[in-house]
Parts: sequence; structure tokens; C-alpha cells
Amino acid sequence: MNYDVVIIGSGVAGLQAAIHAARKKVKVAVIGKIEASALSKAHIENYLGIETSDGSKLLETGAKQARHYGAELFPEEVISVEMSEGGFIVKTDGMKDLACKALIIASGISRNKLNVEGEKEFYGLGVSYCANCDCHFFKKKKVAIVGNGSNAAVAALLLKDYADKVYWVAKAVTASKELMEMVEVSSIEIISPAWPAKIVGENVVKGIVLKDGKVIDVDGVFIELGAKGAADLAIELGIIADESGSIKVDRECRTETEGVFACGDITGQPWQMAKAVGEGCVAGLNAASFARKEVE
Amino acid sequence: MNYDVVIIGSGVAGLQAAIHAARKKVKVAVIGKIEASALSKAHIENYLGIETSDGSKLLETGAKQARHYGAELFPEEVISVEMSEGGFIVKTDGMKDLACKALIIASGISRNKLNVEGEKEFYGLGVSYCANCDCHFFKKKKVAIVGNGSNAAVAALLLKDYADKVYWVAKAVTASKELMEMVEVSSIEIISPAWPAKIVGENVVKGIVLKDGKVIDVDGVFIELGAKGAADLAIELGIIADESGSIKVDRECRTETEGVFACGDITGQPWQMAKAVGEGCVAGLNAASFARKEVE
Repeated sequence: MNYDVVIIGSGVAGLQAAIHAARKKVKVAVIGKIEASALSKAHIENYLGIETSDGSKLLETGAKQARHYGAELFPEEVISVEMSEGGFIVKTDGMKDLACKALIIASGISRNKLNVEGEKEFYGLGVSYCANCDCHFFKKKKVAIVGNGSNAAVAALLLKDYADKVYWVAKAVTASKELMEMVEVSSIEIISPAWPAKIVGENVVKGIVLKDGKVIDVDGVFIELGAKGAADLAIELGIIADESGSIKVDRECRTETEGVFACGDITGQPWQMAKAVGEGCVAGLNAASFARKEVE
Repeated sequence: MNYDVVIIGSGVAGLQAAIHAARKKVKVAVIGKIEASALSKAHIENYLGIETSDGSKLLETGAKQARHYGAELFPEEVISVEMSEGGFIVKTDGMKDLACKALIIASGISRNKLNVEGEKEFYGLGVSYCANCDCHFFKKKKVAIVGNGSNAAVAALLLKDYADKVYWVAKAVTASKELMEMVEVSSIEIISPAWPAKIVGENVVKGIVLKDGKVIDVDGVFIELGAKGAADLAIELGIIADESGSIKVDRECRTETEGVFACGDITGQPWQMAKAVGEGCVAGLNAASFARKEVE
């Protein structure tokens, strides 16, 4: 099957890219399962124009919009990508070979997990991987930040302005000196060396049990351990992801490899819906222009 | 009045920046009249999550969201910006002096106008300044592109895939050789040397009258003459806008001047709502981090 633009990933970045590319009248395919998007289990309240919505509803509407403009959506997984004459070949687990002139990587990232009991069960019910996204849900509550580095410090400093009590659980704090100076004069309580053994609750999070058996009563647990990206996929295209798994792009969402664009969480922080949508627009338009040979 | 972050411009970029900055618990002011945004007279159908909406409604919701998170909105105009110790002072025509640590320029751009009769009257009723935004409204219709350069060629090449007939009116064509090769083998009809004297219609656009008196019947007129930015404002901050009036930013939406961020149409093409919202998110978070001194 021949396409102008193939988009790997059907989260909001991929779908917005599909909308903008398809409106430029190029043949567009999107590969990915919508329910695989991190957003599908999230609740959104910081996206302009929509006061509040479930992520799954936004994805559903986005998929409808992409189809309306002519993009084809394949709820499959990519198993390999290779360069070919005049473009790329994407193979899926549905045994499809999709040839294209331009490729967009919008496959998101996978937040590093704590891998403890209760983490998966209470995801979206008190367990969060994004302080900027979810801080507002913890006004006047008690929360714990789990992580060692500067990201954990920034999350703790933000949450202290919302929550009544912020604990920061770290094996060993490795955040920058400047951030630690701010933490030290704040109300944040550092518990270190320590690490969670499990997250407990009843319908929603109620607390953390530490490895030494100590229990901390909290309503929220923010896990700040960084993320893994789509490094393997990128390598096949001659793109080297950085140590956090992010793919470097310029302001036009171009990667180092001609004809390959990237957008959304895979290009780095902030992991925000609005940022992903904005990059999707830019990547979609530029990939379509590339396929249309409009690039000067 | 003292703020952490002052945002100049209350279009979608400015409002999304306000939402993200205010959620980081910094004191935020937004200066601008919502009805001054280009979007306020537009109809949107390519923004993920919202199938179709009037721009004015999106702006209204965005303003409500920004206020909900604590941003203050001033429907005034900025008359000057100056650097001060530890930040900036913004003066408004409402005689307010707003001091801030970080500044976001989200003042948009003003599309260059043809300055002919009918242009203003039929804006949004057949007259458009954005082919990527409005192409879809002209399926099976007749349109004219007005402009000389590569932007006009790209617009004509896109519209030919939607409209039944595309005229390209130019004083003298200056588009790139590559684009002209595509135009020449297409159905696009170039009318040059020529220029519109007025745009005529009845409720909606019906045609263009050229300076030589010839009349072209069309349903749409795309004016592709580039744009003017907020160059004067930028100069006061030591930022040199490029010849198109755009302000250069990096992927973090930082300008050349420390503490000054920019987002939305002012940072250059594409002039799309999704792109403006994405940059607003990034600029808002980074300006708030700057004001909170979280930057490492």
C-alpha cells in the first residue's frame, strides 16, 4: 500500500498531524491503537477551548476528525521501519507493508514505572506520572513525590503550592543545588533514604508503605522517574535518541533524517497535550509539504 | 502592580500560556482585547478534540479557563515595555504599570492587507488570509489567489485540490522555479500582470474586479501577501524581528533576551490555532519556571 505520509502513533500528536496532513490532500495512514495513548486514561482540564474532558473522548473525536479529512487509521503495531528508494517502508503486526514518502514518529514515551503493587491499580486514581498535568486535583490534600532527581524536586515544589502536605521519597537526592535550596526552606518533608514497597488504597490511593514498613498516609503519589522513548525504532532510521529516549527535532519538527518528522512526547518535555497537538500540526503540515515536494 | 509573568496578547497562544503558567502557581496577567485576535472572526475545524467551533467561542472558553486558574485578564493595549531591575515593566493604555519577572510576547501578527474595497466587508465571507485554514470551505468552488511569491504558489497548489477552478492573480510571479514547474503542469490559471481593484459580492464574495476592469467570478479570495509582526515592541526588549516581523525562538519558546518568551503567530508560520496553543503551553510553563527560578 502506498501513502504520502505514514504516522506512527495515534495519540493526540499523531491524530493532529493526520488532520493537518490530510487537509493538504496527501494520502495519510496512521498506525496505532488509540487505547495505547497515555491520554486515554487521563482527565484533561488544561487544553484551551475545552474546560474539562476525558482523554479517551478527545482521542475519539480526534480520530473522527482525521478520518473525516481522509486519513486511514490502522489499529495495529509497527514491527519495523526501513528506508527504501524514495521513502520508507513501515511493516505492521497486521502484516501490512506501507510505503511512504514522509514519515512522522508520534509514538509517545513510556513513563518509567516504580513496579510496585498498587501502582497500576491506582493509576488515575491517585497515582500520577505528571505533576504539571495533575497538580490541580490535589488541592488541600496530602501527596508523596517519588524520585531522586531534579524532576522530582520541581514536582515537589509545584505540589507544595497545592497540597497541604508534600512528602518527597528518595533513595538519595540528586537534584541540583539551586533546587535543593528552595526545597530546604519550604514545607516539603524529605524522606530519604527510603523507597516505596507498595501503594495502598481503597478505590483511590490512601497511602504508601515504605520498604522499612513505615506507612505514609497520602491521597496522591507522583512518580517522577523519567521515561523511555522509541529509541529502537529511531535507530533503524539513522536517528539517535538521547539518553532519556527523546528524539531531537528542530522547530519544523524535522529529525536528523530527511523525510522523517517527529512530534509529541517523543520529542521531549513538556509532556502536555497542548504541546503534542501543536507539534502534530507543524509535523503534519511539513511532512505533507515534503511529500508534495513544496519544500524550497 | 507586581506579577511573575505578564503575557502580551490574549489570543489562543496567550491564553494557553496563561493557563499553564497560572497552574504553576505564579501570578499571571494577560493584556489584550480578545476581540482583537485574528481567531475571533474565524471558524475552526482542524483543532483536535473540537469538530467545529467559532473562534470567538474558543477564545471565550480559553479566557474562562485562564481566569479559573487565577490569571488576571486586562482588556487593554500595551503602549510600552521596558527592562527594569529583575525584570520588565509593561505600560498599558489603561494607565497601568505592570512589573514582572518574565514576559511572554503572544501578540500575533497582522496579515498584510490588499487594501481594496470589499476586502474588510467580506473577510470570513469568502476573503481569507490562510489557505491551510480555510481550503476545506471551497470544495468544488472557484477561488482566486492574490500574491506574487512562493506562499501564493503553495496556496494555489493546495486550493487546486479542493476548488474546481483556481486563478492566481499576480503583479509579477516571483515564486521558486520548483514551485512554478508544479504550477505550470497544473490546472491553475495565472493572470499576470494584474491586480485586484476591488472584491465584490452580495453577503458573500462573488468576484474580483481587476484594475484593467476585467471581472473574475469567484467564491473565494485568498490574500497571500505575508504579514507584519510586533517588531517595534520587540526592539524595546533588544529582540530583532526578521524581515517578516517574526520573532525567533528556540524550542523552549525563549527569545534572544533572557526572561522574554514568545509564542503563537508572532514566532512564524504555520499560522494555525493548534501550533499557537502548543507554543503557548511551552512558553507558559517555561516563563513560570523562569519566574520560580526553577531553571537549572
